[in-house]
Amino acid sequence: MEISKENISFWLKQLQSTICDALEKADGKAKFSSENWTRAEGGGGISRVIQNGAVIEKGGVMYSAVHGDAPDFLFKESEHTIAKEKTEKPKFYATGVSIVIHPVSPMVPIIHMNVRYFEMDNGTKWLGGGIDLTPHYINETDAKFFHSELKKVCDKHHSTYYAQFKKWADDYFFITHRKETRGIGGIFFDRLNENAEMSFEKNLAFWKDVGSSFAGIYTELISRNKDKTFTEKHKQWQLLRRGRYVEFNLVYDKGTKFGLESNGRVESILMSLPKFASWEYDHKNEVGSEEERTLSLLKKEINWA
Amino acid sequence: MEISKENISFWLKQLQSTICDALEKADGKAKFSSENWTRAEGGGGISRVIQNGAVIEKGGVMYSAVHGDAPDFLFKESEHTIAKEKTEKPKFYATGVSIVIHPVSPMVPIIHMNVRYFEMDNGTKWLGGGIDLTPHYINETDAKFFHSELKKVCDKHHSTYYAQFKKWADDYFFITHRKETRGIGGIFFDRLNENAEMSFEKNLAFWKDVGSSFAGIYTELISRNKDKTFTEKHKQWQLLRRGRYVEFNLVYDKGTKFGLESNGRVESILMSLPKFASWEYDHKNEVGSEEERTLSLLKKEINWA
Repeated sequence: MEISKENISFWLKQLQSTICDALEKADGKAKFSSENWTRAEGGGGISRVIQNGAVIEKGGVMYSAVHGDAPDFLFKESEHTIAKEKTEKPKFYATGVSIVIHPVSPMVPIIHMNVRYFEMDNGTKWLGGGIDLTPHYINETDAKFFHSELKKVCDKHHSTYYAQFKKWADDYFFITHRKETRGIGGIFFDRLNENAEMSFEKNLAFWKDVGSSFAGIYTELISRNKDKTFTEKHKQWQLLRRGRYVEFNLVYDKGTKFGLESNGRVESILMSLPKFASWEYDHKNEVGSEEERTLSLLKKEINWA
Repeated sequence: MEISKENISFWLKQLQSTICDALEKADGKAKFSSENWTRAEGGGGISRVIQNGAVIEKGGVMYSAVHGDAPDFLFKESEHTIAKEKTEKPKFYATGVSIVIHPVSPMVPIIHMNVRYFEMDNGTKWLGGGIDLTPHYINETDAKFFHSELKKVCDKHHSTYYAQFKKWADDYFFITHRKETRGIGGIFFDRLNENAEMSFEKNLAFWKDVGSSFAGIYTELISRNKDKTFTEKHKQWQLLRRGRYVEFNLVYDKGTKFGLESNGRVESILMSLPKFASWEYDHKNEVGSEEERTLSLLKKEINWA
């Protein structure tokens, strides 16, 4: 299939559909809603949201393909490619799938995935994406499984991608004011075009494999953990961890900022926020507790794979 | 009493204490905790927090007085006064009291108050502050009372302050991405020093009156509303409104940003976040409902007084 923005968008729309089917099956109770929306300046998307399921409390699988005049705040970041364009703004096209799933059970981790493609009519184009996991309680077996699966996807395409993109995720998914990582990280990459060993086509194949790996990885994590028992205390801790998730998304996440500043569809952007979250003043964990242990593992540079 | 930063801090510490006493009395059940903290770079504060009360679910009355080398991000905002200082950074001193109260009942409004004083050793000094109210359900009688009380405080000192500072609050407490005000506003002002009619001393007297008005206004609003009955539906709406409060504080509030970026005490800064909050995807209110009515009143330029 020829590489064109239309083909990439088509592939993403199929990915959205496949993932929703897999998640509905894993949930067994709730179904995704589906809203089509259009953006005044060009393009639109399909927002698919699942709520109050047996496994998933709130989750979204959002597809979008927007285009128009490249907004001003893009220029700062890519001045090198835009410097030549002084009189006329380049046209841009951005398409992607974004997922955040907040499960009912504190024993099932929160997951996030994003794959995105961006191009301008001056020839600039790139791929970006990532998957990261936020367990309320860190379980080494699952953490190893999660990172090993991502490493397999990376290793199939490039020998250093896993190490590079794992570090990038550690740095990106970091709540600076808390000095905590959001979860156990995963992989994150941006502005992937071509490099010494990889053509754009090869990077596109890698990027598609990242997107395609999501459903299998997360449904496995669901089936491993969904039937574990939990108490009110576990549930309270889950609410506090979700509070941290809200802090990361509203204070640091670039996709959220981009969306809110570019007059995106608020309900689609903020579907990443949990149904319920909590903040307790100066919460302290018991010494030796599972909660304290999890907190001690929310740091960079742990070799989970 | 001579005007000095020490005297202003002393006054603020007393204000904190008076307000905590009044709120404990109004709550009737919970007591404020008290933590002293110090800032590595200079100064510190007293954080007083109340949780799980009969009326107040979570609230903080925070005093701080910090000093040291003026942080870099201050320079952008006050280049006119700092331009001369090239080789050595001026020393700054900032002191204030900040309050956010999240009540148990959705019938009692959330309130926020801040009074702050800032000076640098190059002679720059100013006063800032504000009070704003966020009812979960807007009640015209209370809104009129709240704004009229603030207007009285302003009118006592300057004939245009209420109009000026009411507009400033409308513009400041605005959730741009939602196109909603946070609540019914109030007053907000910053960088008040001296002007045509008002010496710094006169502005200081105004500023103290703002701080001193808080306890009376809020305890009156508590006693008017705390015994009203409410249902599960009212409570759910309260959680959604608190979600908006979180969005404002993490995305827009300058005090929060300043605190997080200047390596402030995170637990003190984020005491403004509610114990519980909620986000529902694409929530719609029933036509003609109280919730829809409240939402329709979350806009600028309503003359409540």
